Amino acid sequence: QGILERLDAGEIVIGDGGFVFALEKRGYVKAGPWTPEATVEHPEAVRQLHREFLRAGSNVLQTFTFYASEDKLENRGNYVAEKISCNKVNEAACDIAREVANEGDALVAGGVSQTPSYLSCKDKTEVKAGFRKQLDVFMKKNVDFLIAEYFEHVEEAVWAVEVLKESGKPVAATMCIGPEGDMHGVSPGQCAVQLVKAGASVVGVNCHFDPETSLETVRLMKEGLQAAKLKAHLMIQPLAFHTPDCGKQGFIDLPEFPFGLEPRIATRWDIQKYARKAYDLGIRYIGGCCGFEPYHIRAIAEELAPERGFLPEASEKHGSWGDNLSMHTKPWVRARARKQYWENLKPASGRPYCSAMSKPDGWGVTKGAKELMQQKEATTEQQLKELFQKQK
Amino acid sequence: QGILERLDAGEIVIGDGGFVFALEKRGYVKAGPWTPEATVEHPEAVRQLHREFLRAGSNVLQTFTFYASEDKLENRGNYVAEKISCNKVNEAACDIAREVANEGDALVAGGVSQTPSYLSCKDKTEVKAGFRKQLDVFMKKNVDFLIAEYFEHVEEAVWAVEVLKESGKPVAATMCIGPEGDMHGVSPGQCAVQLVKAGASVVGVNCHFDPETSLETVRLMKEGLQAAKLKAHLMIQPLAFHTPDCGKQGFIDLPEFPFGLEPRIATRWDIQKYARKAYDLGIRYIGGCCGFEPYHIRAIAEELAPERGFLPEASEKHGSWGDNLSMHTKPWVRARARKQYWENLKPASGRPYCSAMSKPDGWGVTKGAKELMQQKEATTEQQLKELFQKQK
Amino acid sequence: QGILERLDAGEIVIGDGGFVFALEKRGYVKAGPWTPEATVEHPEAVRQLHREFLRAGSNVLQTFTFYASEDKLENRGNYVAEKISCNKVNEAACDIAREVANEGDALVAGGVSQTPSYLSCKDKTEVKAGFRKQLDVFMKKNVDFLIAEYFEHVEEAVWAVEVLKESGKPVAATMCIGPEGDMHGVSPGQCAVQLVKAGASVVGVNCHFDPETSLETVRLMKEGLQAAKLKAHLMIQPLAFHTPDCGKQGFIDLPEFPFGLEPRIATRWDIQKYARKAYDLGIRYIGGCCGFEPYHIRAIAEELAPERGFLPEASEKHGSWGDNLSMHTKPWVRARARKQYWENLKPASGRPYCSAMSKPDGWGVTKGAKELMQQKEATTEQQLKELFQKQK
Amino acid sequence: QGILERLDAGEIVIGDGGFVFALEKRGYVKAGPWTPEATVEHPEAVRQLHREFLRAGSNVLQTFTFYASEDKLENRGNYVAEKISCNKVNEAACDIAREVANEGDALVAGGVSQTPSYLSCKDKTEVKAGFRKQLDVFMKKNVDFLIAEYFEHVEEAVWAVEVLKESGKPVAATMCIGPEGDMHGVSPGQCAVQLVKAGASVVGVNCHFDPETSLETVRLMKEGLQAAKLKAHLMIQPLAFHTPDCGKQGFIDLPEFPFGLEPRIATRWDIQKYARKAYDLGIRYIGGCCGFEPYHIRAIAEELAPERGFLPEASEKHGSWGDNLSMHTKPWVRARARKQYWENLKPASGRPYCSAMSKPDGWGVTKGAKELMQQKEATTEQQLKELFQKQK
Repeated sequence: QGILERLDAGEIVIGDGGFVFALEKRGYVKAGPWTPEATVEHPEAVRQLHREFLRAGSNVLQTFTFYASEDKLENRGNYVAEKISCNKVNEAACDIAREVANEGDALVAGGVSQTPSYLSCKDKTEVKAGFRKQLDVFMKKNVDFLIAEYFEHVEEAVWAVEVLKESGKPVAATMCIGPEGDMHGVSPGQCAVQLVKAGASVVGVNCHFDPETSLETVRLMKEGLQAAKLKAHLMIQPLAFHTPDCGKQGFIDLPEFPFGLEPRIATRWDIQKYARKAYDLGIRYIGGCCGFEPYHIRAIAEELAPERGFLPEASEKHGSWGDNLSMHTKPWVRARARKQYWENLKPASGRPYCSAMSKPDGWGVTKGAKELMQQKEATTEQQLKELFQKQK
Repeated sequence: QGILERLDAGEIVIGDGGFVFALEKRGYVKAGPWTPEATVEHPEAVRQLHREFLRAGSNVLQTFTFYASEDKLENRGNYVAEKISCNKVNEAACDIAREVANEGDALVAGGVSQTPSYLSCKDKTEVKAGFRKQLDVFMKKNVDFLIAEYFEHVEEAVWAVEVLKESGKPVAATMCIGPEGDMHGVSPGQCAVQLVKAGASVVGVNCHFDPETSLETVRLMKEGLQAAKLKAHLMIQPLAFHTPDCGKQGFIDLPEFPFGLEPRIATRWDIQKYARKAYDLGIRYIGGCCGFEPYHIRAIAEELAPERGFLPEASEKHGSWGDNLSMHTKPWVRARARKQYWENLKPASGRPYCSAMSKPDGWGVTKGAKELMQQKEATTEQQLKELFQKQK
Repeated sequence: QGILERLDAGEIVIGDGGFVFALEKRGYVKAGPWTPEATVEHPEAVRQLHREFLRAGSNVLQTFTFYASEDKLENRGNYVAEKISCNKVNEAACDIAREVANEGDALVAGGVSQTPSYLSCKDKTEVKAGFRKQLDVFMKKNVDFLIAEYFEHVEEAVWAVEVLKESGKPVAATMCIGPEGDMHGVSPGQCAVQLVKAGASVVGVNCHFDPETSLETVRLMKEGLQAAKLKAHLMIQPLAFHTPDCGKQGFIDLPEFPFGLEPRIATRWDIQKYARKAYDLGIRYIGGCCGFEPYHIRAIAEELAPERGFLPEASEKHGSWGDNLSMHTKPWVRARARKQYWENLKPASGRPYCSAMSKPDGWGVTKGAKELMQQKEATTEQQLKELFQKQK
Repeated sequence: QGILERLDAGEIVIGDGGFVFALEKRGYVKAGPWTPEATVEHPEAVRQLHREFLRAGSNVLQTFTFYASEDKLENRGNYVAEKISCNKVNEAACDIAREVANEGDALVAGGVSQTPSYLSCKDKTEVKAGFRKQLDVFMKKNVDFLIAEYFEHVEEAVWAVEVLKESGKPVAATMCIGPEGDMHGVSPGQCAVQLVKAGASVVGVNCHFDPETSLETVRLMKEGLQAAKLKAHLMIQPLAFHTPDCGKQGFIDLPEFPFGLEPRIATRWDIQKYARKAYDLGIRYIGGCCGFEPYHIRAIAEELAPERGFLPEASEKHGSWGDNLSMHTKPWVRARARKQYWENLKPASGRPYCSAMSKPDGWGVTKGAKELMQQKEATTEQQLKELFQKQK
């Protein structure tokens, strides 16, 4: 059954987790460029991660094609020892995802994300051509549906949806925005409306913000759709990091990004609470982005097991709410084998010399800068540089 | 070259990281029992983790035989869907480790750890017989050397070393103790002395405490050896969790163990500092235990690259001290591409409703309980239970 | 010169600090009732606190008549060993304030605050009669001007202003509200407009919220007045506690209120920053409420000394920005004798087992309760009780 | 009855709180010099503070003669607008304390503290002459007993005790040290032994460390006395600041000293716990030092009321364990009117951008510096300066 059949039938669809962060920690992706050459260089590592998500309960395996547009791969080319063509990266990604999907009951989704071409103000035709190049591979490899994800500007997201719709396959679209909306100041509600009008059957957010914040953004999207009398399925794939302190552009501006985020990592119990809230809000496509490891996906599947009627395979190795501690030799560890314990635990950081929150870097308060930022022109490399110099 | 040839020549030997925690998160090991049936059930997952550590710089691949003694596997048997024999688990562990070791320049170490037999007061002959059963497999599979690790009582550790020495292979021995010493109150210095006298060529600590605390314990071991005019190589494989608040029995007594430890996870920069301090203290076998992911091991290898003259393979995907951020589009993210930034960063927890430290659970202050604990009789199930009831 | 002459001339007027909290710690006021019988029982203690504020730079000494309406004193009567009449309390308060004001250059302001009569739904005539009773004393004792302060409902505040205006003396009015507005949901801007229309020459906020939050509320009041093309002087007297985590009803709902607020106490440097921001926002009557000790008022006077051209008397005993440390025997303490040091210090709590923020108590999220709360009927004792039972 | 009669009879004697910190906040003492000219300049302020402590339950009023030795007053002379003679300061201090003591049931104790003469290596005769000059005033004013307090070097403390003993009056002696002992490395146990041998009838600690740490130091003193088979009463007057993070020299080295200590201030409940622990340890002279306000002293008196059979006068304005909240209009505030609530409250800091602990300033780890510090020669101004330069 396809993605829309499942969602239309009221099923819960569980997404997968964050590839670039997980594979960076495993040694196969470089932070900074975040490009997915690993599909060609180390297919066994990508395959293993797909398997772990499948086993944890993912119903969708996204092709590892994040930042795999030709312009991005070229733009980051200096990091890549041997140039690997855009096509090869995308094809390998599709093959691996399909191979693993066949080991279980999962769909394969081909994904595109925002492009340097758009940010450097290339025109619509050129930007769309980039998406089409990736789409050609997805069609050749016959993915089950398509996802346009990680867009900061709704304009570009709409272009992507328009291209993906040409395929005739179902299209989902998620933006990496918070409640303040996109980088041009378009509200979440308006973003959702534009995406649905462009052809997306599923809309929501991914990345950049923690579960709490992302739930609020999707709630605003839902309100926007209702006000416009539009119908669409809702989708959420947030960070597995706590980011109550981040600003409009999300976790990238936090001083800890990307190499000091550890203390912010969500526990499995945090994720169970998130899954429940997402469900209660009416979201039925629930997954994760950066920071989501296989056990976080399993936490979604376990929280929603009563509604779904089954547990994921990986739960063979996981007792519900810690009940596998009930045979521990120490009585006080056995006392942790219950839901109420983990539900109420406020985990200490073990870092008494560190604070609870950080001030985001960036132009923050300076009004002029903010306005410039909302015009995409401001984001050309040279202008950014000059602006930043002026601010200091 | 063997482990002793390397250490005798003054080389730095990098250990690997924590299998049970990493594979629990990947969905292949059950927290609580922590037993390694995955070597038989999911060899591809164990193989992939070995590969990642090898790629990150590990010079030693430990067979995944933690808690793989027959008594432990049986004791935990109710968790195991299909019973898998002790021999099969240990043999598969050896085969996988060897297969991956052959892909690079690494030694294979067969490992034994503390047993339920000892804790339930079986006699020396019986406890030793358990170790011998595992050793038989290690000899058949011809591992390169042997490690007795994760012992809370030096008496049992000495018995393990004595058995492993029968093989004629080099033996390393690490205890999971802190500066207060073993569970019978034997000081780290005395533990080290006893282990060396029993035949260990390398001594130190693993697990239970954070890098800072573990460095202090090894320092005390070093002092003890010097006072006794004994010579041995030093070894350290601590947690990758910050645990400044834990008591004598380490992180198991912390309320966050084992499902809420995320905020305590060390950053790569924490690990670089640890590697440097370990080196400066004269330790030459430097690795990790629970919480150590491949990127933590890479951090050891990168910190000590100047001394060793080379970087690990995984550093292809990692710029030193964040220098891969130097091309980021945002100037303030580019500003993070330098050592000083990450060295001084005090990462926020993102959890303003949580504290920095926790009070360990356990009998803590009650004197009677402490004394009982120091007799191993106290640890039989029934007594523990009664004792705990009385304390409440 | 009167208050309006000073403000009209562009002078900065410095208020005083919090009497009930300071005198509670000194042993003369009971937390809970918070009534000011001390004016009769221990005039020397009240006099001394007035003196300290005067010395610290206060230009206004408020009569210690907080919660000194007849209905409040009676309502709390069971706490008072010997009943002291409302008139006696108010008269003594005026006498003490005038005596100390004469020792320096300060005005005496007679103050009224919200009443139990209003909260228990007495009618306008009755509520106004209560204010008039206090006003009679203020007129007899010839205070310099009048302040209606600590009102949660703008309706009652307007009634108070109307009564006070009958006197012909200048009237200032401050509400204890945050940016969300009063308890009936009237926005800060609307509150300000209504108060000015009722006759207040100075409007703003006092108590309930920290300086940051209170500045935001006054900013909204300023915007409201501008939009309505009304003119009035602005005034601010916030808490000297950090309360980023409190809800609509301010610090009373925080679990730490009122006996565990210590870790939230503002430093003198926090107050200097607040004074500067208040000035920059155009506020010219700048003081404090609960938590403000004499040294906090001195901090306002010191921060604004460049604008005012003089320091308060108490600065004889205080070097600017810690410069009195410049002769300390320890070099690292001497290094603290500079502005940059204290300006950037992020003071540690010394409490690693405590969190940074708390969840406010109260009905919080429950919608029904919120709506009821916005009707004053909900606040009768019996209804509150029933409501709370139902919520649990 | 004198101090010894009371203590010998097993009575609890409650000390007073910290004058220099309290009067600094009130505007009468200058941080840095910390000298008590206020006894002459503003006797009403000193008198009022004494009254508040008496009312809160203090059985001893210490003359406000901290740092009132002639050498100290001269050394700090540049801060004093008009020079006030050492004799005048000490005499006024005695007169004020006696005046207030006569208003209740309190003893007057004349106090001396460590001197610049000792720190700059003046000889024993000269240092003793300084103490004798103050003692002459105490004898003329006929104080009830004498306290030598705030000594970092036991050698100087012994000299002080020897001088004070010449008077024939009872002598108490407290050092401002922690568990690591005095600045020459003499252990707390040894310090206690030397002080008792020199003639002190009461020994203990004051200032520099928080209650927890100070309790541990007194425990070590008690052990030392028991080992030496000496008898003496025990006394404790710690900070009312949480300082788990400070080093050997206490809170002065903390970056927050002295103008950013607010978040560390103890609550009244912290002090009740401290009073109970002090009592349980066998300490019978229990008071406070810097940070102790009148309500902290009241907390001691309330905690020990069951043992003593009475409450202090100030408890008229304080319900036990918050019971005065039982009539609050909000049900959730009423719910705070019980012991269990406040006993278990972990108060939040309201400062999510600040950490829980600080690293003390100072030479800390540098060995050479530490050794020099332990010789008093190191503390001459010039040497300190050079040393500090070298360290940077």
